[in-house]
This record gives sequence, C-alpha cells and structure tokens, in this order.
Amino acid sequence: MLVVMQAHASEEQVRAVCKKIESLGYRAHSIPGAQRTAIGITGNRGEVEPGTLEEMPGVQEVIRVSKPYKLVSRDVKEENTVIAFPGTGATFGGQNLAIIAGPCAIESREQAFSVAERVQRAGAQFFRGGAYKPRTSPYSFQGLGEEALELMAEVREKFGLKIVTEAVDNESLDLVDQYADVIQIGARNMQNFSLLKRAGRAKRPVMVKRGMSATLEEFLMAAEYVMSEGNYDVILCERGVRTFADHTRNTLDLSIVPAVQRLSHLPIIVDPSHGTGKRNKVTPLSRAAIAVGADGLIVEVHPDPDRALSDGVQSLYPEQFDDLMVQICQIAPVVNRTIPAIGAQGSAVPRGRTCAGVQPAAD
Amino acid sequence: MLVVMQAHASEEQVRAVCKKIESLGYRAHSIPGAQRTAIGITGNRGEVEPGTLEEMPGVQEVIRVSKPYKLVSRDVKEENTVIAFPGTGATFGGQNLAIIAGPCAIESREQAFSVAERVQRAGAQFFRGGAYKPRTSPYSFQGLGEEALELMAEVREKFGLKIVTEAVDNESLDLVDQYADVIQIGARNMQNFSLLKRAGRAKRPVMVKRGMSATLEEFLMAAEYVMSEGNYDVILCERGVRTFADHTRNTLDLSIVPAVQRLSHLPIIVDPSHGTGKRNKVTPLSRAAIAVGADGLIVEVHPDPDRALSDGVQSLYPEQFDDLMVQICQIAPVVNRTIPAIGAQGSAVPRGRTCAGVQPAAD
Amino acid sequence: MLVVMQAHASEEQVRAVCKKIESLGYRAHSIPGAQRTAIGITGNRGEVEPGTLEEMPGVQEVIRVSKPYKLVSRDVKEENTVIAFPGTGATFGGQNLAIIAGPCAIESREQAFSVAERVQRAGAQFFRGGAYKPRTSPYSFQGLGEEALELMAEVREKFGLKIVTEAVDNESLDLVDQYADVIQIGARNMQNFSLLKRAGRAKRPVMVKRGMSATLEEFLMAAEYVMSEGNYDVILCERGVRTFADHTRNTLDLSIVPAVQRLSHLPIIVDPSHGTGKRNKVTPLSRAAIAVGADGLIVEVHPDPDRALSDGVQSLYPEQFDDLMVQICQIAPVVNRTIPAIGAQGSAVPRGRTCAGVQPAAD
Amino acid sequence: MLVVMQAHASEEQVRAVCKKIESLGYRAHSIPGAQRTAIGITGNRGEVEPGTLEEMPGVQEVIRVSKPYKLVSRDVKEENTVIAFPGTGATFGGQNLAIIAGPCAIESREQAFSVAERVQRAGAQFFRGGAYKPRTSPYSFQGLGEEALELMAEVREKFGLKIVTEAVDNESLDLVDQYADVIQIGARNMQNFSLLKRAGRAKRPVMVKRGMSATLEEFLMAAEYVMSEGNYDVILCERGVRTFADHTRNTLDLSIVPAVQRLSHLPIIVDPSHGTGKRNKVTPLSRAAIAVGADGLIVEVHPDPDRALSDGVQSLYPEQFDDLMVQICQIAPVVNRTIPAIGAQGSAVPRGRTCAGVQPAAD
Repeated sequence: MLVVMQAHASEEQVRAVCKKIESLGYRAHSIPGAQRTAIGITGNRGEVEPGTLEEMPGVQEVIRVSKPYKLVSRDVKEENTVIAFPGTGATFGGQNLAIIAGPCAIESREQAFSVAERVQRAGAQFFRGGAYKPRTSPYSFQGLGEEALELMAEVREKFGLKIVTEAVDNESLDLVDQYADVIQIGARNMQNFSLLKRAGRAKRPVMVKRGMSATLEEFLMAAEYVMSEGNYDVILCERGVRTFADHTRNTLDLSIVPAVQRLSHLPIIVDPSHGTGKRNKVTPLSRAAIAVGADGLIVEVHPDPDRALSDGVQSLYPEQFDDLMVQICQIAPVVNRTIPAIGAQGSAVPRGRTCAGVQPAAD
Repeated sequence: MLVVMQAHASEEQVRAVCKKIESLGYRAHSIPGAQRTAIGITGNRGEVEPGTLEEMPGVQEVIRVSKPYKLVSRDVKEENTVIAFPGTGATFGGQNLAIIAGPCAIESREQAFSVAERVQRAGAQFFRGGAYKPRTSPYSFQGLGEEALELMAEVREKFGLKIVTEAVDNESLDLVDQYADVIQIGARNMQNFSLLKRAGRAKRPVMVKRGMSATLEEFLMAAEYVMSEGNYDVILCERGVRTFADHTRNTLDLSIVPAVQRLSHLPIIVDPSHGTGKRNKVTPLSRAAIAVGADGLIVEVHPDPDRALSDGVQSLYPEQFDDLMVQICQIAPVVNRTIPAIGAQGSAVPRGRTCAGVQPAAD
Repeated sequence: MLVVMQAHASEEQVRAVCKKIESLGYRAHSIPGAQRTAIGITGNRGEVEPGTLEEMPGVQEVIRVSKPYKLVSRDVKEENTVIAFPGTGATFGGQNLAIIAGPCAIESREQAFSVAERVQRAGAQFFRGGAYKPRTSPYSFQGLGEEALELMAEVREKFGLKIVTEAVDNESLDLVDQYADVIQIGARNMQNFSLLKRAGRAKRPVMVKRGMSATLEEFLMAAEYVMSEGNYDVILCERGVRTFADHTRNTLDLSIVPAVQRLSHLPIIVDPSHGTGKRNKVTPLSRAAIAVGADGLIVEVHPDPDRALSDGVQSLYPEQFDDLMVQICQIAPVVNRTIPAIGAQGSAVPRGRTCAGVQPAAD
Repeated sequence: MLVVMQAHASEEQVRAVCKKIESLGYRAHSIPGAQRTAIGITGNRGEVEPGTLEEMPGVQEVIRVSKPYKLVSRDVKEENTVIAFPGTGATFGGQNLAIIAGPCAIESREQAFSVAERVQRAGAQFFRGGAYKPRTSPYSFQGLGEEALELMAEVREKFGLKIVTEAVDNESLDLVDQYADVIQIGARNMQNFSLLKRAGRAKRPVMVKRGMSATLEEFLMAAEYVMSEGNYDVILCERGVRTFADHTRNTLDLSIVPAVQRLSHLPIIVDPSHGTGKRNKVTPLSRAAIAVGADGLIVEVHPDPDRALSDGVQSLYPEQFDDLMVQICQIAPVVNRTIPAIGAQGSAVPRGRTCAGVQPAAD
C-alpha cells in the first residue's frame, strides 16, 4: 500500500498519516520526492483498509502496490536514489560513477596502503578490502577482522577514500557500521534475512550483492528487507550468476542493470572481478558494465596478485587498473556520466583531461 | 592431515596425540572407527610437519588429505555415520530409513497435533514444522517463533516423534538446540558460515540442506564447517537446485545421493516437497529417492494445504502421505532398508506386514 | 482445435469430417480412443471457424486447445499410447517396461554380438548401438554407418532383439527407417525441425531425446513436430539436462517423467547412462527411474568399456547390467509394471521368478 | 597436428607437404599467415607420425595441438581472420564493426524494403531477414522460403546491403548459399553436425550462433566442423544462453567475447535481440557488446513490431535503431573500431561526424 500525499501537503499532515498508520499496527515509510511525498505501508498483517487514510487531510490517493517489493519500487519513488558522501564528489546513483577498488582481503598495512595509494591516484573514490572473508573452506584464511577495519580507517584518513567492506554476521556488522562507510552484504548472505534486517537498522549505506542464483525479484526483495527496517540507502551489485558455462567463474549478467533500473530507484553497480574470476576478462567487462549503464564498479586490485591470500587470480595489477580507468573514463560521457577525480592533480590521467574528452592517457 | 592410530592404540595414546596437535596451534578431531581411531587435524595455518607426530607411541601413519574436505571424507572415516536416537528405532544412516513429515510452518496447536497424529500413524519417526521461516518477502508470515518450538515439544511428548526444525540465526539456533532434536540449516543459509560454525558448537545433530546452486564440493564443505567446530552429527539433505527447467519449482538432483555416499560417511536424505514444489510430483519423487539409496525423506504434510500459511501447494494431504509410506515401504527392501514403525499397532499399514512384504496397504 | 466425435459416430462420419477439414486447407489427424474418436486439426493458418464443423453429423463438440501442443496432449487422447511390437512382449507405454541396452557405438560384429547375447539373456527386449554418432569433434570416431546397421539387423535375427538407433540427417534417417525398429533423434537434434518432420514421415516409431536445455514445453513440441506429419508412434526420453552441477556429466531430471505423463499420452523412458555420465551412478539412477514411473530405460553396456571408441566411462560391464535388471525387476511391481523376459529360460534371473516376486536373483 | 613452414618456404614446398599429408590418408589445411604458412592436419584416424614430415624441405617444425579445436585456434593462425566484402567497407574481424540489422522474418516486399531503407541510412552494412524460421511449434509461421531469398536479393541490389540469412537444412543451405552473402546457422542447429559439414562445403562465409547451453569449447568445435571441410570464413555469434534468470529471455554472456578472442582468430559478434528478448534491453546491451570488444552486432528492427509475425517483442523501432547507432559510434573509438558508413551522405548521423567524435547526433 502506498499513500500519495498532495503536492502542497504539509509536514504535519505527513506526520499525522504516519502516526495513523502505526496506530493501526503497520509500519510507515515516508519517502520525500521531488514533487510529492509518498508513504509506504508495510507489515505482515495483510492489507490496510484504504478508506481510513483516504479521508485524511493532505492525502491525494491510496494505491495498492501489486508487486511484492514496495519500498524499492519506482512506484513509491520515481526519481533515482542518490547516495552522496558530503565533502567528496563520491556518489552512488548520481552523475558521478562510483569506483570502488582494492584487494580481496586486507593482509597488512603495507599491502593496504600500497593498493590504496595506487587506486586513489587512478581515480577511485572508494576503497574495498575484506576484513571478514566468507570462505568455502573453514581452513582457509578468513580475514584479519577488526585489525583490518582499523587499517582501512587509516586508509580513509590518509587517502581520503571511503571504505566499503563486508559484514558476515551481527557482530561483524556492528563493527563494520562503526569503522566503514558502506556495509557490504555478500552474495552468499543475500538471503540471510536475519542479517539483512540487522543491516536495515545500521546507520551506514548497505551494498547488497546478488546471490549466485538469485532472480531479479529475489534480488530486489533482499533490498526490500533492508529498507523495511528503515535504512533506505541501499546499493545493489551484480557479481555474476552460476550457470553451466565454464570459461568464467561466474556468468556476469549485465542485462540485470537496465532491468533493475526500470523497476527500482536504487543504484546498481557491477563487480567484474567476481563476475568473471579471471584477470584478463576484468577490463573488457568493466567497459561493458559502464556502457550498459551501471552506476559504478567494484574491482579487485592487488600489488602482487600471485601471492594474494585470496582470489589473486582475478585481481588486477595496479597498472591494469590505471588502464581500466582511462577506458571507462572514455565511455562514461556516452551514458552521461563522469568520474570526478580523473584529471585531478596527481591522477593517472593527466591534469586537464576530463571525462568529456576521449583522448587516451598515453598522449 | 590425518593421523591414523594403530589398531591396538590406547585411549591415553590418542589423547597424547591430540594434546600434541593442539600444542602446535591446530585443532584435533578424534574419530573412533570400527578398526582404528583416526585423528583429523584442522586449522588455517597450513600443514603440520608430519615428523613430529609420526614418532609418537600408537601412531601408525600420518597422511596428507588432498581433498578440501577432511572430516566429512571417507578417507577419515570409512564406515557410515549412524545418528541414532536411543530408545527409538529412529536413525539417520542406519538400516532404518528416517522419515520426517509435518507442515511447512507451525500455525496452531490444532494444526500441529492433527498432522503429527496422522504422520506418526503412517510410520514417520520425525516431525518437521517451521518456527522460523526464511521468506523471500519481509511482509510474509515469518513463523510463530518460540511458541512454535513449545508446540513441537508437546508433539514430541504426546506422539513420541523427534523434532526437526530450522534455525535462521544465532538466537533461533540456541532456542532450537534447546527445544528440538535436530537443527535444520536451510538452503539459503548453506553458506552462512557464521551460522554453520555456531551449529558446530550446538549439542544436537545438524541437518544441512543443499544450497540452490551448491556444487557437491560446496555442499560437503558446509558440513565440514559444522564438523570443524566439533559437532560430528551432520545429516545432508538434497532439496533441488535451480535450473532453467520450469515444470517444477526446483530440479531435484537425485544423482547427488550416490555421489555423496561415495565420498562421505555422512547420511543424506531427500526433500521431494521443496525439490519439486508440486504436490503431484512428491510421491513419485519420494519413491525415486528411496530407490536411489537415500537415507530418508523429509516431506511436507498439511491437513488443509489450500489454507496453509506457506508452501501449501507442495504439501501432501494426510491420505496421500499414507499412500506414500506404503509405496516406499515396498521399495525399501530392494535397497536393504526397513521402516521400523510400519506394521506396528495402529499404523496405516496393517499389523503383520513388514517392509519385506510388497502387498499394498489396501488388502 | 479438436473435433470430438460422438461415441456412436460411424467411420464414414469421421472420414467426412476429415475431408471437410482438409478442404478448408488444414490437416486432419484422426485419433481413435477407447470411447470416442477425436480429430485434431493442425495447420499454420490460424484457427478454423468452429461453426462449419459443429453441424456435421456425428460431431459432438469442437473444442479449442489452448496449449501449444495438440496431438501430444491428453486433451486429444486420454489413454496412454502403447507402442507394441507384435509377436514379442516388447512395448513402450504398456504394462511391460521397455529395456533397451547395448554399446554406445557399434564397433565390430564381435562386440555387437557379445553385448547382444548378454543383454538379451539379462532380460532386455531392445538393442541399442550407434551407427551414426554425433560427436563434438569432427576428428572423433563418427560411427560405422550402414555397416553398423547391417550388423544390428543380424543381431535382431539372431537374438530376437528389436533395434533402436540414431539418425542424424535425412540420409541416415532413411537408412535407419529401413534397417531398424525404432528411430532415435538425439538430444542435439531435438530442435532440428527439418529432421523431426522427416521422422514424422517415416514408418517406424520415433524416440525423441530431450535437448540439453529443453523445457517441458519444448520437449513436447518436438514430439508434436513428428506427430504433425502423421507418425503418431513417438517415445520421449529424458537424458539429463545441463546445469552448473559438476559431479555428473548432466543432471538427470526425473521429475519430468510424471510431468510428461500428466500432460501427454506418450510413453517416456530414461537414459541413466548419458544422464549421469558415470558408470557408478547408472544403477542407482536406473532404480530411481523405474520407481518414479518411467516406461523403460536405455542403458549403455560394453564388454570392455575401457577400450570403447566412445563413452566407455559411462558404460556398464555386462555383469553390472545383470544386477541392474534384478534390482529393477524388484521395483517394477510397486509401480504396476513387469519385465516379460525375466524368468524366461536362460535368463539371468532363475526361471520361475517373475517380477511379482521381490527375491533377489542370488537365491 | 600442425606443420609450421619456414618463413621462406615456397608455394611448391607447401603443396608438396599437403600432398604428402593426403597420401597418408589425412586432410591438409594450408593456412597462410603474415609471417609463415601453417598446415593443419585433420582426420579421425589418430595422430600422424611427425618424423615423415619434419624432414621435408621448407618444414620448420611439426607440433602437436593439444586442444580439441585446431583450425579455429590461434596456435594455427595468430592474426585475426578478417572476412571482407570487396568493394564495400563491410568486414567481420577488421577495424570496421559489422552491423547487421533487419526484421526477424521477411514478411513482404514492403516490410523488407522499408526496414532496409532505414537500417542502411542509419549505418548498417548488412541486412538480416529470416526466410526459413526454426519455430518451436510446427503450427507457427515458418518463413516465406525462396520468395524471401529473392526479396533479399532485391534489397542487396537496391540498398547495397550484404545479406545474412539462416539455413535450416541441406536444401535451404544450398539456396541461401546461392542468394545470400553470409549463411547463418542458428543456435538450435549449432550441433547439427551434418548441416555444419555441409556449410563447410559452401562458398559463402558461415555465421555460427552459440547454442543455448553450449560451452566455449563446444562453440569453437562447431566452427571447427565448418572449417574442417575447407570453408575457413567462419563468424561466431553470441546470442544468450539459457539460465534460471527470468528477467530476460536468455542470459547474454558477453564474457565469451574476450574468451573467444583469446583462443581463436575468428571474428565474434553479438545478438542483443535474441540475447535479451526484450526491446528495452537491446540498446544498453548493444553498447555493452561493443565496449566488451565484439566485432559487430546483429539486431532485429521492424517497422511495426507489434504486428510482426515473429519476435516482435524484441525488435527495435527504426528510430530506436538510429539512436543505437549513434551510441555505439561513440563507443567504437575506445576499442579502436570504426563504423564506415556513419557520417556518409544521408546517414542518420550528420555528415562530418565520424566515429572519432563523441558528439551525440542531436547537436
């Protein structure tokens, strides 16, 4: 159910409707838009009787939302959700592409700083690094935990990069919420509904990665779980699905990008590293992801991939990441996007070049 | 790594080896077998130097386990693991088939008791019922929680059925461990490693359902996670995988039953209800599951499936479950299995019939 | 469109309706049933105006068939199609299970005769052997062609086995139609519509194997192609589909057996050899196939699998096939089926035993 | 096996080696390269004894090719295969992108001419249109056959577009070879080896579409079948694979483009129309296909998609195709490609603009 307020409805009227909804035992989600405010009604007790609300002052209409997802839907909020980080040009869903880069796992201060310095220089605004690694084997390296979170907080301090890192359970989620800038929920936990609800009560934006065999609807419903608890800053991330194909580790499904954008106002980015599992496919698929219209990329970069403690085979060398940035910077304007840092002092792309220009970095 | 003790090794010698392993910073898993005791060594710090252990009294040899799974492997334990419930004929992995039946979700005392009475009479030894339901939508019925656990404890009391129910997070796992007889980890949580480890510290047996797109190795590794924490009573459950096929909700992969049995000593059962998602496919696929050699079945039965709060469309009517039991009772002897309760007083199959006979219940 | 004739309609009336249909530019398929005759109307020119036909003598009603498949549907023919081979007990779709066995490819007279002798003795009624092999590589052994067909004709002569073999194009189809008893269309050609239509004009029954990624509807439509040309003796065969699972070569989808039987009157058998690609899975999955309700099996047997020119790794040793026959003979009565030859003089199962008994062959 | 000739080897020496190979009962495929000529040896009789050939004049070395595909491999031919159409800028595999556009099926002269006029003006060099349509149902429109081929020949005459159309069996292949410029083998026939071999004896280039569940190796082997018969002008085409995902008709697997380019010298293009099955996904995925590095596109365009006799739902309106061309023209220079016709007199993109410029057509 969705209550659409009149264009001139006052804040007081919105509050009164929300209060009424909650008095009926439901949950109200007030979603301000450019033209009007909409109020989503959720709760697992069936539908509200619309009559009660339709007569309230400031209400334009009460509409039934037939899709299983409500808060993620464009029916509830027509304009794109833009998640911005004040004081930086970094956004998810805005005109600026969000570029997240870093090692699969944080291994040491040296490793973290060395990668951070390179990816920042190449134009990334976000730094990724695993502190808690969900590994298929209980005997594999599972991450440095809080120590890694502390190192990433230092990276933010030193390089001005925003931190994106995965939480795997309630305990790690609380710590990630405290240290990082974006909480990542991994593909294996996309239907760990208990964790999604906890993320919905966190204060940071949440990035939900698509499960290995998740349909579009299940993917959106995972975001709905987070939003239903009151955290509306959700970013979706395509990272490949599991198919019979064996030339890549997963099959990157770029068609989900326009599919999500049609149904939802949430930003969606692409992970070409897990999406292919092979270093030599990361750059071409990154170009394709930007061209298809994604809001950003999350890419693994490692100073010495062959000795990485996890996923080295899919990590780019720092120089490859430089090249990748130059290429996507050339494609960005075709889809009306920009990369703010490119062209800044000390960036891999010479000062003076901006994303509007297509000249390669070489010249 | 695996330390194989000599046939005549004393308990003291076993203890000494375990102590030594732990002093080296690893974890020791003593696994007594019919002929000898084996001690699995796990820990994510690389391989132990075998020399140290090979010279200890009672040690026959130290062998390297090349597969990623160790404790689940037949290399470590050759004989089938049998999980028995003393005082009942109910077992997983023994000669007796384990038949688990009940509603998708516990909805009320009446519903629970009505189903329990019917499935017990038909020959089931275990009762299933969801207290915590992982639902795709945050707005769907999510289970009665602890109230449902209490109702199931009453069912055990009244009907002598052992209780199998799902835990979805640490909190529910602790409660399930307290109230139930078998802790179920659902398909969506098969790679929720944090939950698997917690289950590995519980006192009840753990049933791990195969993830929707889990390979055989990932499935075994999920069990390894539980075992690596010290809980060796693990049951695997095939429940269908996700494919392009649309005539069933999932594609039931019965070939994984002999595949698991070849590599692992753990019992494996089949869920034809989720495996097909359609009532009219449950009985044929149950017959097939027993014929392929599974150690048991978990089947949804509801007194009024059309009004079930979840998954009604795949739940059998009680009479259909009676028929199913008669049919699998006829197939059981072909694979050297029995169903203990069949033929007992008051059972659907007349007294005097046993699984050795193939006469239908009708006569 | 389907014209249902009255129960007492005369043959002349049926003929008159067919003639009328064809005069309108469509094709009429007269399908006699136990109670009544139905006349299917096909043709790619849209729907016939029902009024014209409803008034004709002997017509009970004209119904619109909403499913895309018509002639394969139970709407058109309620009773199971039984394809019998007069003078033998061999049938597809009858009470007798159809057991087809033999080598992947015919390699020599010695090989063919040696396998035929063994499988006939174990109870098979049909002999399979590839004369034309569709191989992934142009440089692999592609079959002996007509020479193999001649050898199989000798096998029929000597052992009384009916011959099932694959046709890969029009030329081979004409030869197979001439030499063999059942024309097989392989999985790779399930949507080679040109070949299906040619098979629809052949005089022998046609066995259509499910394509590697065929949905239920596509599978039925392949049969519809054959039937639309006038050949109503079609057998379906499940042989595994392609999924992410890697513990078997294909994922055998036994749920399609009851799914087909619900919608169609055509017989359906199972190929556990291609369906698993591994010798040690063939017997368990054969048991499961019979238990699920399949009308028969097609199994690869080779006297020396390790030296087979193709698919040796999935071929049973002759002794394994003996065991398989004993086991499925025990399961058959549970699903109201029999295997005629078992118990016959010289068979692997001692004379006097029949499928009604579940005693193993050993005693 | 591969015979690598010396850089200075004479044509006579090459001929002598080929003759020797054929005298041994194999087939020789002489493949001239920029630096040297290589001679592929194929035949299904096992490996040649290298000694015999190594001693011949002009031979540098004889190497064993361990991959199952030989002639398609970069081991045999390092440089990209470029298939050019003299007198036009149209190429597959060259610097110019190959853009193929047209209706799913040819329905009438008006329809064909109307689409051809538009796509030619927008910059396409090739016209596609089905004359023989492989349809799931025998009762669906199956194409106009030779009449459609004649209409397409007129289109070539009038608009200077090269013709690409599908052959479905030997008869249609002979006609397509006679009327068209490129013979298309559809996804359903990717393993119709008999048809592939026939295409290998045709005089036109052959475009092989990837089967719905074809692995990379099977895809390359289909091309190998064509080449093994002597036709080396093969183009590969990704058109989506079948997965569980239901937001698109197929899942377009763009990662196969760099995967093919790594292993093979053959050109590969992408079909975003069948690859997504939805009009609103065609343009974003076309951009992605060019960005990933494909050698071209094949796109369905229809003047009145809602009334198309097949696949209307995935056909672009002509104006959408104009926009698509402008967008890919902007991406092309990033991957060092051009579209020759863009900017030509009367093209949708104003004269004077070339692919080197990124200005949108609007200004």
